[in-house]
Amino acid sequence: MKHSNVRVFDSSAQAIAFPLGGIGTGNISLGARGDLRDWEIFNHPSKGRILPTTFFAIRAQLPGQPPVVRVLEGPIQAPHTFPHGYHPHNSGGLPRLDGAAFRGEYPFAFIDFDDADLPVKVELEAFTPLIPLNAEDSGIPCVILTYTVTNPTDQSIPVTVVGSVTNPIGKTRQDYFTKVWLNDIGRPTNELRDENGMRGIYMYNKQLDSNDLTYGSFGLTTDFPDITAKTTWIRGAWWDYLQAFWDDLTVDGLLDDTGEGEPGERMATGSLGLVATLAPGEVKTMRFILTWYFPNRLRAWDTQVVQDLGLDVENIDHIQNHYATVFADAWAVARYVCDELPRLEADTRKFHEALFGSTLPPLVIDALSSNIVPLRSTTCFWLEDGRFYGWEGCHDESGSCPGNCTHVWSYAYTLAYLFPSLERSMRRTEFLVETNDIGFMNFRSFRTFHAQAAGKWYSPTRRAAVDGQMGSILRVYREWQLSGDRAFLNDVWPGVKRAMTYAVDHWDADHDGVLVGEQHNTYDIEFQGANPLATFYYLAALRAVEEMARVLGEPEVAAYHRQLFDRGQQGADELMWNGEFYVQVLDDINQYKYQHGSGCLSDQLLGQLHARALNLGSLLPEDHVHRAVKAIFDYNFKSNFRDHANCQRAFAVNDESGLLLCTWPNGQRPALPIVYSDEVWTGIEYQVAAHLIYEGWVDEGLLLVQAVRDRYNGVNRNPWNEIECGHHYARSMASWTVLLALTGMHSDLGRGEMSFAPVAQIVPADGLFRTFWSNGQAWGVYSQQRDPSTGEVVPSIEVLGGDLGSVSITACGRILSPTKTLIGRETSS
Amino acid sequence: MKHSNVRVFDSSAQAIAFPLGGIGTGNISLGARGDLRDWEIFNHPSKGRILPTTFFAIRAQLPGQPPVVRVLEGPIQAPHTFPHGYHPHNSGGLPRLDGAAFRGEYPFAFIDFDDADLPVKVELEAFTPLIPLNAEDSGIPCVILTYTVTNPTDQSIPVTVVGSVTNPIGKTRQDYFTKVWLNDIGRPTNELRDENGMRGIYMYNKQLDSNDLTYGSFGLTTDFPDITAKTTWIRGAWWDYLQAFWDDLTVDGLLDDTGEGEPGERMATGSLGLVATLAPGEVKTMRFILTWYFPNRLRAWDTQVVQDLGLDVENIDHIQNHYATVFADAWAVARYVCDELPRLEADTRKFHEALFGSTLPPLVIDALSSNIVPLRSTTCFWLEDGRFYGWEGCHDESGSCPGNCTHVWSYAYTLAYLFPSLERSMRRTEFLVETNDIGFMNFRSFRTFHAQAAGKWYSPTRRAAVDGQMGSILRVYREWQLSGDRAFLNDVWPGVKRAMTYAVDHWDADHDGVLVGEQHNTYDIEFQGANPLATFYYLAALRAVEEMARVLGEPEVAAYHRQLFDRGQQGADELMWNGEFYVQVLDDINQYKYQHGSGCLSDQLLGQLHARALNLGSLLPEDHVHRAVKAIFDYNFKSNFRDHANCQRAFAVNDESGLLLCTWPNGQRPALPIVYSDEVWTGIEYQVAAHLIYEGWVDEGLLLVQAVRDRYNGVNRNPWNEIECGHHYARSMASWTVLLALTGMHSDLGRGEMSFAPVAQIVPADGLFRTFWSNGQAWGVYSQQRDPSTGEVVPSIEVLGGDLGSVSITACGRILSPTKTLIGRETSS
Repeated sequence: MKHSNVRVFDSSAQAIAFPLGGIGTGNISLGARGDLRDWEIFNHPSKGRILPTTFFAIRAQLPGQPPVVRVLEGPIQAPHTFPHGYHPHNSGGLPRLDGAAFRGEYPFAFIDFDDADLPVKVELEAFTPLIPLNAEDSGIPCVILTYTVTNPTDQSIPVTVVGSVTNPIGKTRQDYFTKVWLNDIGRPTNELRDENGMRGIYMYNKQLDSNDLTYGSFGLTTDFPDITAKTTWIRGAWWDYLQAFWDDLTVDGLLDDTGEGEPGERMATGSLGLVATLAPGEVKTMRFILTWYFPNRLRAWDTQVVQDLGLDVENIDHIQNHYATVFADAWAVARYVCDELPRLEADTRKFHEALFGSTLPPLVIDALSSNIVPLRSTTCFWLEDGRFYGWEGCHDESGSCPGNCTHVWSYAYTLAYLFPSLERSMRRTEFLVETNDIGFMNFRSFRTFHAQAAGKWYSPTRRAAVDGQMGSILRVYREWQLSGDRAFLNDVWPGVKRAMTYAVDHWDADHDGVLVGEQHNTYDIEFQGANPLATFYYLAALRAVEEMARVLGEPEVAAYHRQLFDRGQQGADELMWNGEFYVQVLDDINQYKYQHGSGCLSDQLLGQLHARALNLGSLLPEDHVHRAVKAIFDYNFKSNFRDHANCQRAFAVNDESGLLLCTWPNGQRPALPIVYSDEVWTGIEYQVAAHLIYEGWVDEGLLLVQAVRDRYNGVNRNPWNEIECGHHYARSMASWTVLLALTGMHSDLGRGEMSFAPVAQIVPADGLFRTFWSNGQAWGVYSQQRDPSTGEVVPSIEVLGGDLGSVSITACGRILSPTKTLIGRETSS
Repeated sequence: MKHSNVRVFDSSAQAIAFPLGGIGTGNISLGARGDLRDWEIFNHPSKGRILPTTFFAIRAQLPGQPPVVRVLEGPIQAPHTFPHGYHPHNSGGLPRLDGAAFRGEYPFAFIDFDDADLPVKVELEAFTPLIPLNAEDSGIPCVILTYTVTNPTDQSIPVTVVGSVTNPIGKTRQDYFTKVWLNDIGRPTNELRDENGMRGIYMYNKQLDSNDLTYGSFGLTTDFPDITAKTTWIRGAWWDYLQAFWDDLTVDGLLDDTGEGEPGERMATGSLGLVATLAPGEVKTMRFILTWYFPNRLRAWDTQVVQDLGLDVENIDHIQNHYATVFADAWAVARYVCDELPRLEADTRKFHEALFGSTLPPLVIDALSSNIVPLRSTTCFWLEDGRFYGWEGCHDESGSCPGNCTHVWSYAYTLAYLFPSLERSMRRTEFLVETNDIGFMNFRSFRTFHAQAAGKWYSPTRRAAVDGQMGSILRVYREWQLSGDRAFLNDVWPGVKRAMTYAVDHWDADHDGVLVGEQHNTYDIEFQGANPLATFYYLAALRAVEEMARVLGEPEVAAYHRQLFDRGQQGADELMWNGEFYVQVLDDINQYKYQHGSGCLSDQLLGQLHARALNLGSLLPEDHVHRAVKAIFDYNFKSNFRDHANCQRAFAVNDESGLLLCTWPNGQRPALPIVYSDEVWTGIEYQVAAHLIYEGWVDEGLLLVQAVRDRYNGVNRNPWNEIECGHHYARSMASWTVLLALTGMHSDLGRGEMSFAPVAQIVPADGLFRTFWSNGQAWGVYSQQRDPSTGEVVPSIEVLGGDLGSVSITACGRILSPTKTLIGRETSS
């Protein structure tokens, strides 16, 4: 079901690339015109990569009329500035449809095509299964494209919908003219198969060794009964291939075989057509299932990191993607999808409906759903041994800053709530692999791949990231709350204690609860002296350790950290509160470069936000927090950037709005302040928005969310790709905190509790409120409505996946019992 | 003077890159926003290349108000999709102006900036001197940027206009984050100089050998008296450089020196500010002169061609640009420009005014002037020995199809009329170097650089291009008409005769005047059998040879070719006329691939068009020509491309219009026709437009010109870069033929004659008609007006450059005597 509360984009929204694909599988993206772009299924980012002669087309013919044959895309958009025009490989000269209206409701994308000449109406629905708590079925390397064709006339209309894909397996090069050529071992093979209700073209390459990094297969398949196929296009000179295909399609909508079965020196393009005659008024759904299998990765972050570490890439062996442990090849993936489709589709629709059918502000749903993308983008990968990894984001063709970066990922909540077992695997890496004997934690996980490369710039002697290290401790507590998994907690607990000890020893040697010294952090610089970001993070982490120590029966440990917390709680406020917000305290702000000093840092209360989300209580005087978060909004939110002089990186321009990272309302801006102060980061906007909402500044919080989503308007930027230091930036997954703040949802499976307390301002006037929720072991819909007879608000909860078990649920002063609907197969790991 | 009849573009016209720079110097282009883009001064194309932190800015301050500081550019345009935002090297975060209205009147570009906050009004005029017949002064490696600042207030306003350029000399690399770094020998030096009325920053690199391909220098200079400078920006960490510069500029509009004079590991950016206080109402012009000097090229087309020829690039030595024989370095260029500026500017303005002040249809002026660009773009180069060369066009970073390609360049008329000595050098290369003993001409000039590489795919045994070879013969006759240079004609004449003999022997062995056999041509395929393009080209060339033989006193030669012509004239029409247009005659059209057969080829009458332009008379029955050219328009012009199924390259899409290369109005389209039949090429549109106009179909001709220019509308494509197989495609210089057709201008200096006969439809209602003209030895303005008393049309001619000498001028049935104004230094070569 499509929803009316989402944005509709026309073909001018050329920034749109809606990523399809599963967790750890890479993506194929759908453009606003209906074009497939950014083929990123080869284990690295590939923004801008297209496959030659790869497109969908339709032929429809009214009786007695010439056929109408169109590429199933909206009009090609300016600029048309390729130095040789559109190459036939781009099929830019073929006729498109008049228009395409694109809507994205992640994980679904919908396009309504329209055309004055085409006698049928066509809609496209595209998705890859996504089921909360079911990482396996959310990690299938597939894209499901369903074209719905309607015959609005009173005549029968024969229709062919045909997908053409160029076999991408092998070694290719692109020439000056943008034409793609095969190298010696680039001769791929296409094969037409039809078995057990599924049929299509299986693409592979006999010449590649199964250990080759480019080894793999691809499937262009369907469950539609009536097909026509051109298994391999002719491989003639010039652009004979495209002419012959298009003419063949045009004549009768049926495709001839070319006899080009054997691998040749040119690309192997295959076409699969679905054929139907639509009776007057008839509606047909015609589904394509695209699957892929590229199992092999370097056992490393990537070659660049290997080189940066001074290692020889020749000595690095390969490791497989997790999905390679489940499937044998792309045909097996298609087989699974075809067999399990009813369940996969139903469960994905339940999730989609739970989210988009909620009464949350549409822009919040937008922010929430769109930022699920990073965890299914090439920012992340998932290995055969179950480990899950994330870059910070992506360059166009490689990851952008490696290593599960603790300070960036500490802002991200989405994965923890949707796929907590994967999130826990990151904690295991941090505390079981990357934290050394004295509790120093590599804030980038390199040791996990390259233990031999210690001594490099990210070596222990160099620096620990105070916010990352504290953030990881807090996240252990979160993962505990979202799992109640004592085995997990036991595993990481020694590392947690060591990491906390390191923090105390290195930054709080005088045990006053206020951090000092050189404090590396997410701004890629070192804060010096007392500063709110680091110290409040520390206070929150002290509380988390206290709570975990209690759970694990270590009261002395709990008491020790509580004592530090109590001291810091008082001292920090006294030291850093300036009457409006919290400041960094340094005698001489210019003694060190890149400090913030008396500036108003948007992140100053991040530790408190985490504490709030994790139910750790107040770290600071409540009225100070209440005023400080508003001061952040008042001083740092800019409603336009026309006059903004930003000598740093620019993520907001012209008439856009956004939240600056730091301003100096009282002057005293350092000559060279914190290096990102004049920038705008979506992850920080979201965490501040959540905090504003928690503190009752709901309009202000929603305005921040609005500002982000307005910048990502399809023309300026891609709504499904929030950028910072890279595409699909992990910090953007802070948007989940906005959901937590608006719904007041909190869960602690260790205690067997879950509760809701939606913010009054977003409860609709009719009193009927609905929201999606997930607590790590189940997910569903929470509702409340006003009983018209009593005026009383009556809550209810529906479980759509997982097993809520014996969790006690509190809302509106009542204890609820859930309606269970069991699906999914998430298990503790 | 700006003209009101040109298009005005706002900052959304992001396809615009207006190339500045001289003949054989490369270019820096001006974007619609006022940004400098496409730095192509390094002896190869570089579409998209920008220099880091290179931009112009203004600071203005009303008394008692904060200063307004802005980058002198219109607003940055969407999409803003860099994976890390705009890097500080792009200065994307700095405030721009509200708007920029861009107008291009080649060689001048004008921008009117506007901004609500800036207290002064700013306009920019940019140009590089261009003076017809004066190749030297049209080949200066410089850009002159003049900012005109107006104070519309009643208060004095201090203003600084500052240009910042990053020293581009040396070896650099760009990292993932788009940041530019220096390599070991990339440490450049900036030096502030002030001498003899000229001052500025001289940029060079002491570490490079003067023979290095990247060796060179750059000048950021001015003749403005009051300057402030930051010779080299600080080279601190992060983006300290930009912050320090911007803050320094903001404080007081005066720049501090940084003491960074010695070469360092980071880039050397230099800023030159022009400082003035504008009294109420005052207008100041503040001029920057950018000059460059990159003398060294490979003595070859480029490394790719060297490799394609199987040669070792290590064995290829260097050759210098022509401009390196004139200037010693970029400072000397600036010196010359500064000293000669009054003359250079005045003469350039005369040319500009002669063209844009004419009464020709504005879109014709647009087509004519914009397609001067190719000869000053990186499509062409000009060597120290005086030889001039042209690619067909450019890829983004290299030439696109090398070798003065005879078949493509035969469409181009612009260079012959503006800089005939350079055009003659191409004929010398063709007939003195590339034409062998039996008259086979390499249609790509490779022998000139690589005599040792015979035997490759462009070897004599492979193929001669029939249209190119005939075109070169015709162009010899044109160059003779435009020079009357008997020495030139004598030099190339033996080659011309051999080339003609080859054509007769190989394609007209039966001497019937109709060509048959395998005829390679500009469609990159071989025509077979009788076809109008080849045969009519041949007939025109026979006539040209006849005429030249008469000039040179070889009556037998003249008679022989006349005889062939006479036979062909009759036979060709009988054989190929289908009643509407001319067709290819082949028994079995599908016996060979890529033929056009019964199709209506837009180029079918190209030989006749050349004959018309060169006054060689009719090759065919006049009524057939008259009807055929109209048939071309009727059948091949498409008013939109929505339904056009083009499996070839696409140069027109959606609602654009244009002329197809070939259609089959009577059916019988081959399954695989001529490989470009469904494409649209501007060069062919122009030649057909000219022919339509010659034949009286003036509206149709102008509609074709309109179609081209509408496609190049600044948003879809760059109006100053017509593309085909590459940017700045040489064939687009066919637009000059439209001028010839509209004005009826013809010159034959061999005979000492020049004549005008403007098409009645374009003479304005008031009877006053004005046009630019050039005849190879002089240029100026031709006018005619109606005498109100007699009703008689009175012609007059003004010479603005060169020396018309004793040429007899005929117009309106009169003989005119010119008003002479001598400038320029074009000499016969």
